[in-house]
Amino acid sequence: MSEKTPTQQVSEWLTALSAALDRGDAAAAAALFGEDSYWRDLVTFTWNITTAEGNAKVREMIERAVLPAKPSAWQLEGEGTEAGGVTEGWIRFETGVARGYGHVRLIAGKAWTLLTTMTELKGFEEHKASTRDKGVEHGVHPDRKTWLEQRQQEAAQIGITTQPYVVIVGGGQGGIALGARLRRLNVPTVIVEKNERPGDSWRKRYKSLCLHDPVWYDHLPYLPFPDDWPVFSPKDKIGDWLESYAKVMELNYWGDTECKAARWDATQQEWQVTVQHKGETVTLRPTHLVFATGMSAVPNLPDYPGMSAFKGTQVHSSEYKSGEEWRGKRAVVVGSNNSAHDICADLWEHGAEVTMVQRSTTHVARSDTLMDLALGGLYSESAVKSGIDTATADLSFASLPYKALPPLQVPVYQQMKERDAEFYARLEKAGFQLDFGDDDSGLFMKYLRRGSGYYIDVGASELVANGSVKLKNGAIERVTDSGLAMQDGSELKADLIVWATGYGSMNGWVAQLIDQPTADKVGKCWGLGSGTSKDPGPWEGELRNMWKPTQVPNLWMQGGNLHQNRHYSLCLALQLKARMEKIPTPVYALAPVHHKS
Amino acid sequence: MSEKTPTQQVSEWLTALSAALDRGDAAAAAALFGEDSYWRDLVTFTWNITTAEGNAKVREMIERAVLPAKPSAWQLEGEGTEAGGVTEGWIRFETGVARGYGHVRLIAGKAWTLLTTMTELKGFEEHKASTRDKGVEHGVHPDRKTWLEQRQQEAAQIGITTQPYVVIVGGGQGGIALGARLRRLNVPTVIVEKNERPGDSWRKRYKSLCLHDPVWYDHLPYLPFPDDWPVFSPKDKIGDWLESYAKVMELNYWGDTECKAARWDATQQEWQVTVQHKGETVTLRPTHLVFATGMSAVPNLPDYPGMSAFKGTQVHSSEYKSGEEWRGKRAVVVGSNNSAHDICADLWEHGAEVTMVQRSTTHVARSDTLMDLALGGLYSESAVKSGIDTATADLSFASLPYKALPPLQVPVYQQMKERDAEFYARLEKAGFQLDFGDDDSGLFMKYLRRGSGYYIDVGASELVANGSVKLKNGAIERVTDSGLAMQDGSELKADLIVWATGYGSMNGWVAQLIDQPTADKVGKCWGLGSGTSKDPGPWEGELRNMWKPTQVPNLWMQGGNLHQNRHYSLCLALQLKARMEKIPTPVYALAPVHHKS
Repeated sequence: MSEKTPTQQVSEWLTALSAALDRGDAAAAAALFGEDSYWRDLVTFTWNITTAEGNAKVREMIERAVLPAKPSAWQLEGEGTEAGGVTEGWIRFETGVARGYGHVRLIAGKAWTLLTTMTELKGFEEHKASTRDKGVEHGVHPDRKTWLEQRQQEAAQIGITTQPYVVIVGGGQGGIALGARLRRLNVPTVIVEKNERPGDSWRKRYKSLCLHDPVWYDHLPYLPFPDDWPVFSPKDKIGDWLESYAKVMELNYWGDTECKAARWDATQQEWQVTVQHKGETVTLRPTHLVFATGMSAVPNLPDYPGMSAFKGTQVHSSEYKSGEEWRGKRAVVVGSNNSAHDICADLWEHGAEVTMVQRSTTHVARSDTLMDLALGGLYSESAVKSGIDTATADLSFASLPYKALPPLQVPVYQQMKERDAEFYARLEKAGFQLDFGDDDSGLFMKYLRRGSGYYIDVGASELVANGSVKLKNGAIERVTDSGLAMQDGSELKADLIVWATGYGSMNGWVAQLIDQPTADKVGKCWGLGSGTSKDPGPWEGELRNMWKPTQVPNLWMQGGNLHQNRHYSLCLALQLKARMEKIPTPVYALAPVHHKS
Repeated sequence: MSEKTPTQQVSEWLTALSAALDRGDAAAAAALFGEDSYWRDLVTFTWNITTAEGNAKVREMIERAVLPAKPSAWQLEGEGTEAGGVTEGWIRFETGVARGYGHVRLIAGKAWTLLTTMTELKGFEEHKASTRDKGVEHGVHPDRKTWLEQRQQEAAQIGITTQPYVVIVGGGQGGIALGARLRRLNVPTVIVEKNERPGDSWRKRYKSLCLHDPVWYDHLPYLPFPDDWPVFSPKDKIGDWLESYAKVMELNYWGDTECKAARWDATQQEWQVTVQHKGETVTLRPTHLVFATGMSAVPNLPDYPGMSAFKGTQVHSSEYKSGEEWRGKRAVVVGSNNSAHDICADLWEHGAEVTMVQRSTTHVARSDTLMDLALGGLYSESAVKSGIDTATADLSFASLPYKALPPLQVPVYQQMKERDAEFYARLEKAGFQLDFGDDDSGLFMKYLRRGSGYYIDVGASELVANGSVKLKNGAIERVTDSGLAMQDGSELKADLIVWATGYGSMNGWVAQLIDQPTADKVGKCWGLGSGTSKDPGPWEGELRNMWKPTQVPNLWMQGGNLHQNRHYSLCLALQLKARMEKIPTPVYALAPVHHKS
């Protein structure tokens, strides 16, 4: 161990980095990083979300992105800390056009990880706290416009006589969070949403749905939930919150508006977005188009023989509402992830006879254990009490490069296995096929790699374990007129089949609204290229296409869980604002497309 | 100066107090207070809002209220501080049934001021932070009710098949803040409001209205404004906020519901409250009835001869909407306080020819100066930055007894006079008659004593000073068919007369809805009994009837500005909750009634 304090170590490292960068000496700067080091940059230097992995790539990024951005004013924020041989600290810095915040971890005096993230563009800061608007213009002003008149005028004109700079397709949590960020940055925006009211995309799901992530993980930007907000928000309550939020944030939210088509007008250098707005066709002409259509927007329906011949009712899980009408009836739910479990429980609670069809292994994590072992350090009441606010938690989370995550996750899930050993034994005894991910890295990695493959247990596993919900393992051969014929020769009779078979890649929406070639050019969304199930390589380093430039100029993807929408919406909003203000945004390391879907 | 640290001084004082109280020794406890000392108690010991003034009264309160409440667990919270010979500190304590928080100031080792305020009832704590509800009941529960179903069921039943414990008449900021407190404490409540939507009482006022208090002073309980909220909220924006707030807080808010009558049913020991609810007559039967009808609810129309003969338009300021239709017309505004100035400016901005009739002297404070000198220490961005959160600011504010306030206020307004000397000179030159309160104690004392008599200048004074708005001083003799005849023989021609002549006492609403004898029994509301203009003595020590027991059992008054509604709503909510839970609530020092209105 060094005899220097952690604060001294981080400060001296920053001074050395600063000096090397000031000299334009990429080699010297890179020499401050270890061999297996990472520099993760959110927008600041790269106008991208990208991680340089390994010393050579770090040096390349310094040369080609960091130096040109004129970094300066590197300083430690607060005190450095040390634990287990890793010294770390929060940092501030600037570029020629922006201010940034970040985090560094040193091992033996060299950087292991560096996170740099843009907080604001110089000259285009949000008006807040001491720079907030006054609200009333003091003095007297003939024919002044009131707040209401200005707001009504804007709402009446935007998209009709004036054009928004950004159109967001999809007014769920992703569209709303980004909309709030853009409003703060004075980027004229219209959100189009096929449902009537903000929050409807939650309200219209099955009755028993609650958020599976706890409240501390779920705050929207700028307006945290009050301190009595339930740990797991019921769907209608979060729906109402989103509606109030959209109103309070003064979003131009076009409900009851379906996006029908979009095309790039190369002459005008703008999109033509055709929407059906309360029954009328309107063409919007924004410079940028954001798909916030949800991770779960394009239902995956399997294509088994005989599906059309089934005489009962069959629905994709996204269309399932409630078990009320299935009391005493036979229901078969195909799938074994979150929705499948929730729907099985809902059907059983309403007195249906339920069978779950498990076609492949599934990761199950008990909600309490997950909160305790995986989330509690950053997102919990005790984290709040120990002073970790949401912003700090988000940045801590972001400071670990994806490549470095799996080995850190494995022990968490090992502990989970041990703590809940009895629970897992009972599930397995009932025939349920468990996994913990291809490399035992558990739930969060599954979420990042494929957005599926797990159930956060809030009770349904007990129904499977005790046989209340029947379990059928194996592959389906075909659908009969009265149920499912399995490849093992058995048959499952059903009045209702629920296909809880997941969703396709978000670029399916690009195909629907623009065309297939554009969707192919954007490529698959989400996933890391880990080479594990449903996440084919090569390794990408970051989530494909999310919140960052895609191969199609002026086309963007926004989405994820509430945490991601909160945190990464700022990255995307700053990228859009910079373009609106004609600030140069040279994109470094634009990701190539390896998979079309 | 003592050689002991402030922390030691406060701790030792608390130890001595605690020991004396433990022995039941009121004399020894009182001996720890100075001769000119104050013990201000919000609910904790007295089930009242009352201040014992002077050592003898303090001793009496200790004997008759404090000791019976079984105080214990006195302790200093954080560190004591010392400035100008006053040592102070925050404190915690308990009674037999509640937990409390407070503040003490020591001079020469003896208490000068002690504030004790109830924070929660033992066993009936709010579910928040680590005790928040889970939101979803994990496990499986046949026929479980979702959040939405429970909420809808409650809303459908309350007031119809089940009876609320509390009915609040008036759904403005006062009713809404109290409603939120009661919801947190699980006190079944219905708010009745004649307007359709929460916030309408703001929306329906004159177009240019903005809050005159700054945002840091205006937060509602539990859900602070986001950090970009404008300093002075425009009326429609605060209206929208109140509407979202009422929804998020899950209030049973009956809009479009006019309270027609109320009477106490002595047999049933409950109120019969007759309301017109969306056109239908409904009788509510709550145990407690709260008037949250607003400080400004019963318009004061003067009774000049000839008023009915006036051929133009005349409205009370509460009915005034906008100057739009008065362009080029002659408008006379009678009055010289806030509303009068706002309306004069609005009329002038719309091109009317405006005259203000000033009948008596008025206190004018420039908004910026007021924020800087009078509010900035507790309610400002710099206060927030120095760690003074809203709760701390509210309690600091509450810790100074009303009796001790005026001498502390005088120097503030002396400084204001000096800083804005040029401004005041110009106003006086234009003939405007200024005052700074009978005893030069300024705006806040005027607000407490009479709720009127001042203008917070946001621009209209300039119009008066430069003659754009004409000024007429003096008394009105009568109204003619075409304007006003003044006692000095002059005449003011008018197409519009606005009577900006203020409002009556809140118990006017009691007379309207119950009867005059009950209103007389409640007596005048607001004011301190200071013996200054419009606030006749004898001295009361606290605001008459507000947020505390009145002479009419089970009848309560809620109101004030946003700060007061936020802070004192907790006092009132705890008093109501204790009664619902049958916790003994012996009221000490119930205020007698000296004035009927």
